[in-house]
Amino acid sequence: MRSKELTDLMKTVREKHPLVHHITNYVTVNDCANITICAGGAPVMADAPEEVAEMAAVAGALVLNIGTLNAAQVDSMILAGTMANERQIPVILDPVGAGATRFRTETVQRLLDELKIAVLKGNAGEIGVLAGAAGKVRGVDSHGLAGDVAGIAKDYAKSARLVVSVSGATDIISDGKRTLLVENGHPLMGSISGTGCMAASVTGVFCAACEDPFKASVAALAAFGLAGERAAVGARGPLSFKVALFDELAGLTPAAFARGARITKV
Amino acid sequence: MRSKELTDLMKTVREKHPLVHHITNYVTVNDCANITICAGGAPVMADAPEEVAEMAAVAGALVLNIGTLNAAQVDSMILAGTMANERQIPVILDPVGAGATRFRTETVQRLLDELKIAVLKGNAGEIGVLAGAAGKVRGVDSHGLAGDVAGIAKDYAKSARLVVSVSGATDIISDGKRTLLVENGHPLMGSISGTGCMAASVTGVFCAACEDPFKASVAALAAFGLAGERAAVGARGPLSFKVALFDELAGLTPAAFARGARITKV
Amino acid sequence: MRSKELTDLMKTVREKHPLVHHITNYVTVNDCANITICAGGAPVMADAPEEVAEMAAVAGALVLNIGTLNAAQVDSMILAGTMANERQIPVILDPVGAGATRFRTETVQRLLDELKIAVLKGNAGEIGVLAGAAGKVRGVDSHGLAGDVAGIAKDYAKSARLVVSVSGATDIISDGKRTLLVENGHPLMGSISGTGCMAASVTGVFCAACEDPFKASVAALAAFGLAGERAAVGARGPLSFKVALFDELAGLTPAAFARGARITKV
Repeated sequence: MRSKELTDLMKTVREKHPLVHHITNYVTVNDCANITICAGGAPVMADAPEEVAEMAAVAGALVLNIGTLNAAQVDSMILAGTMANERQIPVILDPVGAGATRFRTETVQRLLDELKIAVLKGNAGEIGVLAGAAGKVRGVDSHGLAGDVAGIAKDYAKSARLVVSVSGATDIISDGKRTLLVENGHPLMGSISGTGCMAASVTGVFCAACEDPFKASVAALAAFGLAGERAAVGARGPLSFKVALFDELAGLTPAAFARGARITKV
Repeated sequence: MRSKELTDLMKTVREKHPLVHHITNYVTVNDCANITICAGGAPVMADAPEEVAEMAAVAGALVLNIGTLNAAQVDSMILAGTMANERQIPVILDPVGAGATRFRTETVQRLLDELKIAVLKGNAGEIGVLAGAAGKVRGVDSHGLAGDVAGIAKDYAKSARLVVSVSGATDIISDGKRTLLVENGHPLMGSISGTGCMAASVTGVFCAACEDPFKASVAALAAFGLAGERAAVGARGPLSFKVALFDELAGLTPAAFARGARITKV
Repeated sequence: MRSKELTDLMKTVREKHPLVHHITNYVTVNDCANITICAGGAPVMADAPEEVAEMAAVAGALVLNIGTLNAAQVDSMILAGTMANERQIPVILDPVGAGATRFRTETVQRLLDELKIAVLKGNAGEIGVLAGAAGKVRGVDSHGLAGDVAGIAKDYAKSARLVVSVSGATDIISDGKRTLLVENGHPLMGSISGTGCMAASVTGVFCAACEDPFKASVAALAAFGLAGERAAVGARGPLSFKVALFDELAGLTPAAFARGARITKV
């Protein structure tokens, strides 16, 4: 992506201040709310079947995250997702812990079958499991994916007709035709809970401001990773790093973003 | 309110260390717990129908917040609120997102019908919707209230027989007879998730230490807003501001509170 | 415990990086996740009956915390705990608020009856209530335990056949035969929500890396308390202290741990 595209996209995000409806886990939900604000959006969390369709209908994007999955939540995800699909609102799915339990793996498969997902944002282990490759997941952490991850992401994106966004030391984003790598980030991002979930929220914010979910995903992970790099300067440990991560994303100017983004081809 | 009243009230809060029972959302619940402590109270969060009445019965105040509303929660709110009413324990209601979905608006109406609410603490959009005025709510954010907000708050307080507390750049508190404005606060308070919820929690702490819910509400928003002003000094962004907001409220002395409070008549 | 044991145990924790499955409350769950990481473990939170047994089966420890108890959660705790017992995975129970409501007290009793609990980690009030002594609990806070707390803990540990770990200004840990005191800690730990819950999570991490749940409990509270002491240096209030608490635990070296631990006999 060119510098001009990145600056324009970030400007659009901040101007639109899009509402991002989340149905998400209770572990990192506060982080998701605050990172959405810091990225330029407005978060709303709502999961009751009585209201999820109504809330999704007015959102700019819908983020589904199965971090603390339960049966009632799945019904609400289907209701909200169906409404989002009708209104052409992009749906971002974070398959947290897919592969760790049958309930998670099967639920993700059901969501992929019944909804049109714009972006599937997972770690390498989760994406590997869903793609039928050798992904390993323990709890909610990736324990690796053997083989050519970029190739697996590309093939899976093509067959599933969505954008696959693999967050990790190097992020890999593919829509089956185009594949880009994002080199931004810092090891401290792995030392706190919730960076994967936050990456999905930022992706939601950018998708709400950009017609192309592929470019939105690339820009979102570059912005989030760049904030991580800047936050690491002066951090005294995981939690002071976390505080700075939010501050840095909120303070990231479009110009600094375009200068700092490290996006490369495979 | 006079300086003496403010210092005395804050001293009473810190001496009583009142238990504040919350039935609240899972997004900002940790913030509500910590701000309750920093304000001088002791938080307890409990929402199971098996125990809410028993917990409410020993609390100094009950805070009901519908930020992530679901049907089971409404039943528990009625159970806890009924017990609080019997024991003359003040009930604070934060109608988060009222106006955004029918489920939220109708639930707030039901809670107002079935319970005696001491303080209704919302943003201008929410209060406007409930008052039948032109309030606008998107997600959980106020998108404005056309007209004379203080007048709307006053009339609604009078007809609903409760204290209306409208948090915003300028807070407006009215019990239908008396109306006061609180000018304390800082724009950074709008850059993080949960300041509205926290304002309701602090209101609960002060209501538990003061016979007059109107004065308690005014003092609570002044103290919280003043902590925000002091926290903004030296903040490097939204989250370092948030950390300082808790620290400043905890460290606010009765004398500094009385000096810094900016409470005016309409 | 000798210095060598402490350094070895902390090294083992960091090498094993054990998965700690939590079924816990939604107030402090994010703190529990992050403190687990900072202590050297990997957290996973999962509470759906469809998956808890499968998740527990691959964990190094299971932490049950009733901070926001509900009926569905109890079933999941039994399911997960039964699997953990079968696989000899240590189960840590934090009886948050036992004594405050009948629902909490009875549920803890049921969990103690139906599961083999390795460590019962509570405050003095909670342990007192469960031991049939004069424990007082208001909300989720201990309001004291009259009498010889160490003696009560020892007797209860003996009769209930588990490790009793009483967190407080001085922590008391007993397995009915051995009793040790941990003097590490700082008053600021009482000024934030969640330190009790976090102590249980750290205990889970250490139990997953040590055959002896008594020694694991002692070491866990010493490490957590020592991090608190170091975090207090330079803290400007409760929340900046909290940020530093995580940073300090993450940065605690085995050597500094062994030097700083203050473990004494009764």
